[in-house]
Amino acid sequence: MPWDEFGLISACFRPLSVAEPGAFALTDDAAVLAPTPHMDFVVTTDALVAGVHFFPDDPPGSIAKKAVRVNLSDLAAMGAKPRCVFLASAFPADVDKHWLNAFAEGLGEDLQAFGVALAGGDVVATPGPLTLSVTAIGEVPAGQGLRRSGVRDGDVIAVTGTIGDAALGLDMQRTSAPDALDGAARAWLLDRYRHPTPRIAAGQILAGRAHAAMDVSDGLLGDLRHMAEASGVDILLDARRVPLSEAASRWIGLVPAARERALTGGDDYELVFACAVDDFAAIGEALAAAGVAATAIGRAEAGEGRVYRYETGRRQLVAVPGGHRHGVEARGTSEP
Amino acid sequence: MPWDEFGLISACFRPLSVAEPGAFALTDDAAVLAPTPHMDFVVTTDALVAGVHFFPDDPPGSIAKKAVRVNLSDLAAMGAKPRCVFLASAFPADVDKHWLNAFAEGLGEDLQAFGVALAGGDVVATPGPLTLSVTAIGEVPAGQGLRRSGVRDGDVIAVTGTIGDAALGLDMQRTSAPDALDGAARAWLLDRYRHPTPRIAAGQILAGRAHAAMDVSDGLLGDLRHMAEASGVDILLDARRVPLSEAASRWIGLVPAARERALTGGDDYELVFACAVDDFAAIGEALAAAGVAATAIGRAEAGEGRVYRYETGRRQLVAVPGGHRHGVEARGTSEP
Repeated sequence: MPWDEFGLISACFRPLSVAEPGAFALTDDAAVLAPTPHMDFVVTTDALVAGVHFFPDDPPGSIAKKAVRVNLSDLAAMGAKPRCVFLASAFPADVDKHWLNAFAEGLGEDLQAFGVALAGGDVVATPGPLTLSVTAIGEVPAGQGLRRSGVRDGDVIAVTGTIGDAALGLDMQRTSAPDALDGAARAWLLDRYRHPTPRIAAGQILAGRAHAAMDVSDGLLGDLRHMAEASGVDILLDARRVPLSEAASRWIGLVPAARERALTGGDDYELVFACAVDDFAAIGEALAAAGVAATAIGRAEAGEGRVYRYETGRRQLVAVPGGHRHGVEARGTSEP
Repeated sequence: MPWDEFGLISACFRPLSVAEPGAFALTDDAAVLAPTPHMDFVVTTDALVAGVHFFPDDPPGSIAKKAVRVNLSDLAAMGAKPRCVFLASAFPADVDKHWLNAFAEGLGEDLQAFGVALAGGDVVATPGPLTLSVTAIGEVPAGQGLRRSGVRDGDVIAVTGTIGDAALGLDMQRTSAPDALDGAARAWLLDRYRHPTPRIAAGQILAGRAHAAMDVSDGLLGDLRHMAEASGVDILLDARRVPLSEAASRWIGLVPAARERALTGGDDYELVFACAVDDFAAIGEALAAAGVAATAIGRAEAGEGRVYRYETGRRQLVAVPGGHRHGVEARGTSEP
């Protein structure tokens, strides 16, 4: 492809900026965002590298969507309403027009679906793998941004949706799934890996009601640890209650070891939150009304940042996993 | 290096976040920024790739500084006061601790020098070259953000500082400089390439006084073209008046062809601005009081987005350069 940053921006990306007047149709040095009265800005940035965070031959639209969604998930975790995204993309020189069009099309579909504008960005060439950095900006009522550090002694710990699908979907794409797993289950798991659902409505429901929240991106056990550490409490996880999809349950029925994988693998992009026991029912109802299931998976107690799981009647300290490594590359491993 | 995102963030980057309380010491999913009353947010993002935008063996502190400065330059171009930056970095697996420490040290020096905090970021591994994406956020009095599209018929076109140093500094690092060029001149040009000076104070002086501004990043001729197009005017450039440093003048004295290189090369990160003829003297004085020279290099007239240069008594249309290509890589060229 003859490298033409300006042509590329104008053809592919400019149309995606219309919803934000301060994006100036991507023609200026920067975007100007007038704050919404009584709202704080919430800002997050995440980078994704081909061969590390996604497969280079994943559908281009899926790659764009994942880059957007993992960032919107961070906004959701703070209780924010997304407003716009900025995309800095380093494209390999051999990327072709069809690929770029499909990428921009997927990007546009998601921006529209989530009601956000592309407010700026940068397009550069790289001799390396495709690398995408998205910065997402949202807004939350002033002072109500959800933190991961607010868990209190006695809180219920709960998660949205189901856990472990994405890790199994990744395993399936990287190596294989059990032969007995049917096509629908495979499609579900792959879709959960490629197209995580940022829990935006849920985050806004939780803001002002939950004591703490974060998104599950590094694996449930690791992220519970982050939450416990940040809050200075211990978290007791009843691992039997971790919600699993039908597809994940079937896989685990066939290969019991996959259960640990579901608990430690990353890329769920569900929310884990903490709230008072007395508030859980009402929060659960509000979430259900928004189409999001919430499942209590444990509780917090005074402690020093540890995670315990109890399954067979006794408490077991969860070893520090050190965080999930994105495991697309062959040498990678998502196990702690 | 055993890859440890969390250790790295905590050791190297967390200390750089203290100035922004809403960064939560980089421990949360996103930063929360309370807007300053009566100010708009200004947001920009730029990506830099080793081997494309800088040399892989450049000093790590210089690489960090350049990544910060090119973004602050975009804020300066809008007249904004920088507030914080977000850094998404993809590090090759072989990056070592000393390199990272030097990188973080340079980053910290610049953040302190420019009074901005590191408010968030992401650290990932890449099998490719070091890739940095910085998102910078600043604030400008509501409605006063400078655009490149505001140039009016009859305006003076002026630039801050000197033009062409960075392109010559890059040429020197990539191939060579004329033998007769002394050490001080070489050091100046290299420093201008590696450590551009974002014209932050100048941008804030221009906001509310100039009709239009942008930063010169893609080469003066190309950027004048962008300004003319965005404003729907023609710009007449008196190329003889383009301010050159002593070092650049000496190089051009030795190799006259280098003059075109100075006019078309990129990475200057000076500001080009347009203002009413009657305002130029006062603006120039205000800039001088802030230690920044401003030089009138041409004027605007009704037209359709073209750039003409006049040097030998006649007007000559400047061909559309299509923008600067960052020319670190051997196969790259910064000429149109």
